[in-house]
Amino acid sequence: MVKNAVDVIFGGLTFWAFGYAFAFGEDGNAFCGWGHFFVNANEDNIGWVYSKFFFQASFATTATTIVSGSMAERTKLEAYIVFSMVNTFIFCLPAHWVWASNGWLRNMGVVDIAGAGPVHIVGGVTGLVATMMLKPRHNRFVTPEKVTVMGSPTNAILGMFMLWWGWLGFNCGSTFGISGVKWVLAARSAVSTVTASVAGGSMGLMMSYVIKQRRFDISYMINGVLGSLVGITANCAIAEPWEGLLIGIVGALITNLSVELISKLKIDDPVGCVGTHACSGVWSLLSAGLVTKPDNLSEAMQLHNVRQGLFHGGDFYQLGIQTLAALVIIVWTIVNAFFWLKLIDLAIGIRVPLKEELLGADIVEHAVGGVIYSKKARKIVYSPDI
Amino acid sequence: MVKNAVDVIFGGLTFWAFGYAFAFGEDGNAFCGWGHFFVNANEDNIGWVYSKFFFQASFATTATTIVSGSMAERTKLEAYIVFSMVNTFIFCLPAHWVWASNGWLRNMGVVDIAGAGPVHIVGGVTGLVATMMLKPRHNRFVTPEKVTVMGSPTNAILGMFMLWWGWLGFNCGSTFGISGVKWVLAARSAVSTVTASVAGGSMGLMMSYVIKQRRFDISYMINGVLGSLVGITANCAIAEPWEGLLIGIVGALITNLSVELISKLKIDDPVGCVGTHACSGVWSLLSAGLVTKPDNLSEAMQLHNVRQGLFHGGDFYQLGIQTLAALVIIVWTIVNAFFWLKLIDLAIGIRVPLKEELLGADIVEHAVGGVIYSKKARKIVYSPDI
Amino acid sequence: MVKNAVDVIFGGLTFWAFGYAFAFGEDGNAFCGWGHFFVNANEDNIGWVYSKFFFQASFATTATTIVSGSMAERTKLEAYIVFSMVNTFIFCLPAHWVWASNGWLRNMGVVDIAGAGPVHIVGGVTGLVATMMLKPRHNRFVTPEKVTVMGSPTNAILGMFMLWWGWLGFNCGSTFGISGVKWVLAARSAVSTVTASVAGGSMGLMMSYVIKQRRFDISYMINGVLGSLVGITANCAIAEPWEGLLIGIVGALITNLSVELISKLKIDDPVGCVGTHACSGVWSLLSAGLVTKPDNLSEAMQLHNVRQGLFHGGDFYQLGIQTLAALVIIVWTIVNAFFWLKLIDLAIGIRVPLKEELLGADIVEHAVGGVIYSKKARKIVYSPDI
Repeated sequence: MVKNAVDVIFGGLTFWAFGYAFAFGEDGNAFCGWGHFFVNANEDNIGWVYSKFFFQASFATTATTIVSGSMAERTKLEAYIVFSMVNTFIFCLPAHWVWASNGWLRNMGVVDIAGAGPVHIVGGVTGLVATMMLKPRHNRFVTPEKVTVMGSPTNAILGMFMLWWGWLGFNCGSTFGISGVKWVLAARSAVSTVTASVAGGSMGLMMSYVIKQRRFDISYMINGVLGSLVGITANCAIAEPWEGLLIGIVGALITNLSVELISKLKIDDPVGCVGTHACSGVWSLLSAGLVTKPDNLSEAMQLHNVRQGLFHGGDFYQLGIQTLAALVIIVWTIVNAFFWLKLIDLAIGIRVPLKEELLGADIVEHAVGGVIYSKKARKIVYSPDI
Repeated sequence: MVKNAVDVIFGGLTFWAFGYAFAFGEDGNAFCGWGHFFVNANEDNIGWVYSKFFFQASFATTATTIVSGSMAERTKLEAYIVFSMVNTFIFCLPAHWVWASNGWLRNMGVVDIAGAGPVHIVGGVTGLVATMMLKPRHNRFVTPEKVTVMGSPTNAILGMFMLWWGWLGFNCGSTFGISGVKWVLAARSAVSTVTASVAGGSMGLMMSYVIKQRRFDISYMINGVLGSLVGITANCAIAEPWEGLLIGIVGALITNLSVELISKLKIDDPVGCVGTHACSGVWSLLSAGLVTKPDNLSEAMQLHNVRQGLFHGGDFYQLGIQTLAALVIIVWTIVNAFFWLKLIDLAIGIRVPLKEELLGADIVEHAVGGVIYSKKARKIVYSPDI
Repeated sequence: MVKNAVDVIFGGLTFWAFGYAFAFGEDGNAFCGWGHFFVNANEDNIGWVYSKFFFQASFATTATTIVSGSMAERTKLEAYIVFSMVNTFIFCLPAHWVWASNGWLRNMGVVDIAGAGPVHIVGGVTGLVATMMLKPRHNRFVTPEKVTVMGSPTNAILGMFMLWWGWLGFNCGSTFGISGVKWVLAARSAVSTVTASVAGGSMGLMMSYVIKQRRFDISYMINGVLGSLVGITANCAIAEPWEGLLIGIVGALITNLSVELISKLKIDDPVGCVGTHACSGVWSLLSAGLVTKPDNLSEAMQLHNVRQGLFHGGDFYQLGIQTLAALVIIVWTIVNAFFWLKLIDLAIGIRVPLKEELLGADIVEHAVGGVIYSKKARKIVYSPDI
């Protein structure tokens, strides 16, 4: 939770300082924006610039929040703060490519309404790089039975509902700025998001019922819902309800299978962020190549170069563009995440010492229960029990 | 909590597949809609159909969620999943009657702005049938002192606030689709909802202070607020502030008294859903017969046949219509709830075996704490403590 | 939490009955409004009056909620209920002065967009008076190490996020009623609120890192964010992003230092409400004297008499007005809070007996865990353990 606050605080700060400039500054080229550093505006453009900044800042911080899950319980808070500032940079270039009016992927006709690429693939792949660099938590793969233990199902489901509602807002809000037909696009986004997520949830429950011998494992359901939500991200305002349903089912399948696979590979991803965001994010970008169709509503979203998707009698062109976008963003993210995290590791170290990991951040950083731990002396210097 | 996720997932799925068709399909008659199965729309009507679907889907799943409270802690999850699909059907016909432009109750002039009938009476009465069919939880009425024990007052009040905010949204949003004067109706809904709920909360606290000998029992306050919110449901955009106040006071009174009564009757309704939703829902429908008045705003809500209510110098006609609606919906719900639950009981059984009930769903279904229970062997096959 | 529900219930009731009348009734003079008691409206003005009532009611209840923090764990619930009704009165006169079209401070040109004065200074100063009158909790300053102990950092951060989101809504919504350019003002409010709060959070973490020897104390971060949010309250729709940043940094500094100071003075303010709301609220009012500028947007907010602030080449006039407003509201609040709380103390007593304080309200009032305490006999009359 502290990491999430850090995401918003330092992610917000850096997105204001340079993220918006790289992503949407008007003086840039096809690969990088330039201008509007330390966002400010005069009376003429204040409304548009500030609304866009505010909306995009939430995307930027979401991309970092995704990573926080896979770095849980063993990362130095100092290192994480530096990383949360760097991650704004990893996010903002792909954002420029797919969203800015002169972005090169956008001009090739890529479709990514609510950020499957810049948010979910960037977040999920960075999370994968981070968790592999950090190594698993101590003793994580020694006692395998503990793997699926969940602290509190009620809290987990509450969290799922909060994400669910937030997603509806994101997907509907992503059609932002298109006056006149805006509410129609928002309505279509809402319905495709609903059909995708209920289909994903059903799929998750069914998978659990089959695999776990007639038990309903909540984590399958939650991953099903979240995976289907990621799946519908790129194409929420385009997909018909039944297409949303299909995308949700496949998204839930991909997420649950990849979470299992990643656990089998002994990669320690505490909340399944790689499967949910990276794998299902790729599916989301690809699926847009199936369901796109150029009509008045696409035109209203300023998707000028969009082609007929495969489901609507088109050829493989749109699917090719989407695949290219996914690949480019994956490569960009791997290279950058590795470079920056390595740099941070060399500079200040990213993993906490074993002793502090076993004590837990609640005691080391936050003095919960009144225990005082000295980082210098590397031991507890005051405890109310003593 | 799992049940609530199931409500949304399977309720959403079935409302998309056939619920919307029965409730709002345009090819139906006065008793049942027909058309728009597997909701889809073309470019012309996409905005209206999808907005209406999205808004109504939340009503449908709310009706099912109400029931989940009274089935807590002793219902098979398989049976509940089937039930959550069936309940869409129980909801969608009354919804057609009171809301569709050719619904027979609507054309007689019934007023039910935000679903006192299709949502709260249907949910509450189904809950009553379900809890009587399930029988009380094991040992529920042996040690009476435990009845009023509340796990965490903080969580309960947090939950109340979330419901409260949600209700404001529902009531304001129910004037949906009336452009121009829409915000005026939303403002009136907000104010009547506020005066009703604060009056209901005060009433609940006063009742506790009197009945419980100068103690403030939080459950009285919570039931007071919720009961008054149900009470204002049918007439939120119509009632004057002082009428809202009165409706809230009576709603709180009815809810708290009926929750006490139901407990005295040894009907096991863990969260008081019958008193809150069924009893106060009936009051809500009736009270609309007191406060209606045909004016420009009623006209804007397309309530063409509404008459002067009793408080505005009218006769008993409007009250008669409201009473008829309440009776018809109660009978419809009892018959259907009994029929479908009996069918599910005969097919797969609705109550968990005693052993599994005592262990609790956290262990049996969700393997919380790492305990693995085998449904086939009917015993715990792995526990980390052993 | 119970107190928060009481705030909304009784604060809402009294704001409806007389608060709106004193604050915004049109028949009043420069010092007090008159009219619209028991808020009601006819068809012509229903939209404006009800929207304004609804929005202002949330300000009024917020002012009382701020106080509840400093009265925690030792106040009689009966006394608190009476106080929550009285506090509506303490709030509504300053609200009239700074917001009503004929308010005397408003006509002198004071700027207070979202209630730094009537909400935060009134709430924080009342809290200070209340906590000094109540005396510290039993044994509060005997074992100093326990001071900074926090129950659950996760809950605390969740709470912070909820306040954060709510604040965004408040600040954006405070430009309410200005059609046409309203969304531009809302966008500027959103951005200045974001830059202020992320700067405040960073500042808080840095202060902790320096003061607490390389540990990240969450309470510093939370107080930093909240203090910066209070700081931006008065000028959210006016400040440029970098001005918001500066205001946030100073607000975080002031809040954290004054919370430390108040604790050193052995004033028992359990959640730091005095430092956060009173001290940072004064800073907020003063800072508006630095950043104001008369332009089209100020005109749109009907701030007709606003002058150039110091940062924009103005003289000290605006700062003088803001200082006057802060002083007047502080004096008004001290006098009233002392008078009314003393009256309540003499009438029914404000502090619970020591025995009940040690048992805690969960047992005394709410029978948590099934323990029944009799207020008359002053002892526990039933406990499941016995």
